[in-house]
Amino acid sequence: MTSPVSGFSKKNKQEKIQWLVENYLQNDPIAKQTLERYWNSDTALQRLHDDFVENTLSNYYLPFGIAPNFLINGKFYAIPMVIEESSVVAAASNAAKFWSDRGGFKAEVINTEKNGQIHINYFGKPEDLEQFFLLVKPKLITGIAALQKNMKQRGGGLLEIQLENSTEKLAGYYQLHCTFETKDAMGANFINSCLESMAEIFESEVEQYEPFQVSQQFPEVVLSILSNYVPNCRVRAEVSCKLKQLDGKKVDGKDFAKRFVRAVDIAGVERKRAVTHNKGIMNGIDAVVLATGNDFRAVEAGIHAYAAKDGAYRSLTHASIEGDTFRFWMEIPLALGTIGGLTSLHPLVKLALRILENPNARELMQIVAVAGLAQNFAAIRSLVTTGIQKGHMKMHLMNILNQLEATSEEKEQAVEHFNERAVSHNAVVTFVTQLRS
Amino acid sequence: MTSPVSGFSKKNKQEKIQWLVENYLQNDPIAKQTLERYWNSDTALQRLHDDFVENTLSNYYLPFGIAPNFLINGKFYAIPMVIEESSVVAAASNAAKFWSDRGGFKAEVINTEKNGQIHINYFGKPEDLEQFFLLVKPKLITGIAALQKNMKQRGGGLLEIQLENSTEKLAGYYQLHCTFETKDAMGANFINSCLESMAEIFESEVEQYEPFQVSQQFPEVVLSILSNYVPNCRVRAEVSCKLKQLDGKKVDGKDFAKRFVRAVDIAGVERKRAVTHNKGIMNGIDAVVLATGNDFRAVEAGIHAYAAKDGAYRSLTHASIEGDTFRFWMEIPLALGTIGGLTSLHPLVKLALRILENPNARELMQIVAVAGLAQNFAAIRSLVTTGIQKGHMKMHLMNILNQLEATSEEKEQAVEHFNERAVSHNAVVTFVTQLRS
Repeated sequence: MTSPVSGFSKKNKQEKIQWLVENYLQNDPIAKQTLERYWNSDTALQRLHDDFVENTLSNYYLPFGIAPNFLINGKFYAIPMVIEESSVVAAASNAAKFWSDRGGFKAEVINTEKNGQIHINYFGKPEDLEQFFLLVKPKLITGIAALQKNMKQRGGGLLEIQLENSTEKLAGYYQLHCTFETKDAMGANFINSCLESMAEIFESEVEQYEPFQVSQQFPEVVLSILSNYVPNCRVRAEVSCKLKQLDGKKVDGKDFAKRFVRAVDIAGVERKRAVTHNKGIMNGIDAVVLATGNDFRAVEAGIHAYAAKDGAYRSLTHASIEGDTFRFWMEIPLALGTIGGLTSLHPLVKLALRILENPNARELMQIVAVAGLAQNFAAIRSLVTTGIQKGHMKMHLMNILNQLEATSEEKEQAVEHFNERAVSHNAVVTFVTQLRS
Repeated sequence: MTSPVSGFSKKNKQEKIQWLVENYLQNDPIAKQTLERYWNSDTALQRLHDDFVENTLSNYYLPFGIAPNFLINGKFYAIPMVIEESSVVAAASNAAKFWSDRGGFKAEVINTEKNGQIHINYFGKPEDLEQFFLLVKPKLITGIAALQKNMKQRGGGLLEIQLENSTEKLAGYYQLHCTFETKDAMGANFINSCLESMAEIFESEVEQYEPFQVSQQFPEVVLSILSNYVPNCRVRAEVSCKLKQLDGKKVDGKDFAKRFVRAVDIAGVERKRAVTHNKGIMNGIDAVVLATGNDFRAVEAGIHAYAAKDGAYRSLTHASIEGDTFRFWMEIPLALGTIGGLTSLHPLVKLALRILENPNARELMQIVAVAGLAQNFAAIRSLVTTGIQKGHMKMHLMNILNQLEATSEEKEQAVEHFNERAVSHNAVVTFVTQLRS
């Protein structure tokens, strides 16, 4: 390829694939077949999925799995998880089972406020802008009455608009900070539509305001958009039990709890560790976020920024031993929807929500937070006892065997062989080669 | 469900589905069919995907799309993207086309060092630990010779081990900070195997070291694991052009550049804005990370923590006007693999890498960073000109129509109708209802 292609998006799927195969895949018919073998045989269903985004050529498979036995606020859930990393579903299931015998998970929504900003340039007198804001604020609110109608009927809508002087951060920088309640919708479209509409009204009113004309200093909207930083849309998840309930076959409960708390404390002070610690939490969170049709980039960004809220990037989870009790908990910001977006479009998302017994957004926040906490519990437990590689490589054994195109018989023999032996890519290759020779 | 299920992971897929349908889906045959209609008709292929993780019931579809016209370091790429959010692929394609006419993207790998830590408790004299470390360090290195063999042949391996005294962060906390070069592998399994192996050697040597026996203060390994914080595995992507090259039909290039730079500057000082700004970057990054079989949770965690490295969470991108030149760039940590993991297992991942002309890890770092920068450019451009909702809702139109089960004819009419009108869920419902009455 030495020149750009024109009108690509206007080609149909066959033409796009043809172009790709000609220009990047040496006209290889196998390459084309690889895309096609992932198409669904139900053409209507395939069209639905093709329309989700632009230039769709095929369906990328991520495993849709299930982690049962999650006891949350006294109710048992089977949690659908969409994730490609081996051992995540297994770890979640193990942690769920473990805690179902010890009172289960408690989860609580702390608040559900979303927010968005109209970002403004203004280099005139602050008082003029403040006066103008008082004048225009009611007009902004009435101006979005039609947009808000449905949301208000559901009990949500714009909560408040505040003018923030951010000139200490950046010369001439002000914001209209707007807060929203969006009920069971994640609310991105609603908030952005409200903000852009208010920004238009704001700009048209600016032109008519006399003090700005006198000073010839007019506020100007730079951009308007929701924020994925939602520290006031927060959920808490926790587990606790007596130390002696942590006793295992080879482990003393108190010793285990001490090691566990120490590991969490380390992630509380050391960024290099905190990043991977929180990454493990996100393994659980994103898997449920994906399964329920929510936007994992939004969730990731909001949570990681929250982990850095104190100026240092820290662990999201906390653990303590108080008297004879072990406690492990987490508080995270989480803006999720159970209506709108993909939730009513993607048949497997609909099913995932049904499996969760059609939660509202608040319940889903709790479930997702618990999945994250469970994941972290399982990871830390492995790390402070046997290490993670043993379990991880066992899970990876089947992938390596598939790569070697092992037969069912070979797989059985390999699983038996590696039951008490360390799995490594080399060791598996050697074993299968020996089997075959 | 009032009690946990036992032995769930040992059930086969049919039994797992049966259990789920009985316990959570009211024995609804449609629910079962929904899972089954996503199975691949090729049973060997389906088994491959089932084995990726545990308790897999079906395949979750994410659109596999393509964004052509990416001119990177003088070469045209068509970038595969896996993403469920409408407008991301379109935005990437638009930005790619835009910059292909203006010299394209430049990208550069700055360094490729990975790291991991053995986290240690030790409350004795620091000098004793320092002396012990000098003694044991060669043994740690020789102890992983077999593990390192393949990696060394590929030019990688353990680079250095340093003892870090982190007692100012947490009493009694030390680390063995280990750095690695892992070439075209992401390296998580390799690094974790090395660390756990070195940790074992370390612990066995501890017992025999006399000064520890004298003081009765023994260092103890808490846990050993790689870090997903990889500030020394970094890539830079940038674009630049003359201001007049930014002139559009209705836009003056210099005005546009000023608004653009201001928008980026705001994301540089305001966390609420930075989070969403960076989220948009991750839309592009994660889409390629997923398509190429890499771990997006690892990438997300590392990048967001890097955005907070100065103590405040900030924009990852930067923009400037220097004389008559507009510049826009980003530097991010990015640990990716083009071998190992899913890269040789998932047929669509293999194909995605082929579409990218089988890049090595360094090339993939550049491509992924460019996808992120392009995404951010497209988002900021929309935000400072027309706003994002118009484009976004246009993209969402097809989803709403599918939800209403619109026919091809209805879709055509709707697309025409909404060509010059604002798309909202209500407006589309009203329009289709009218069509049908």
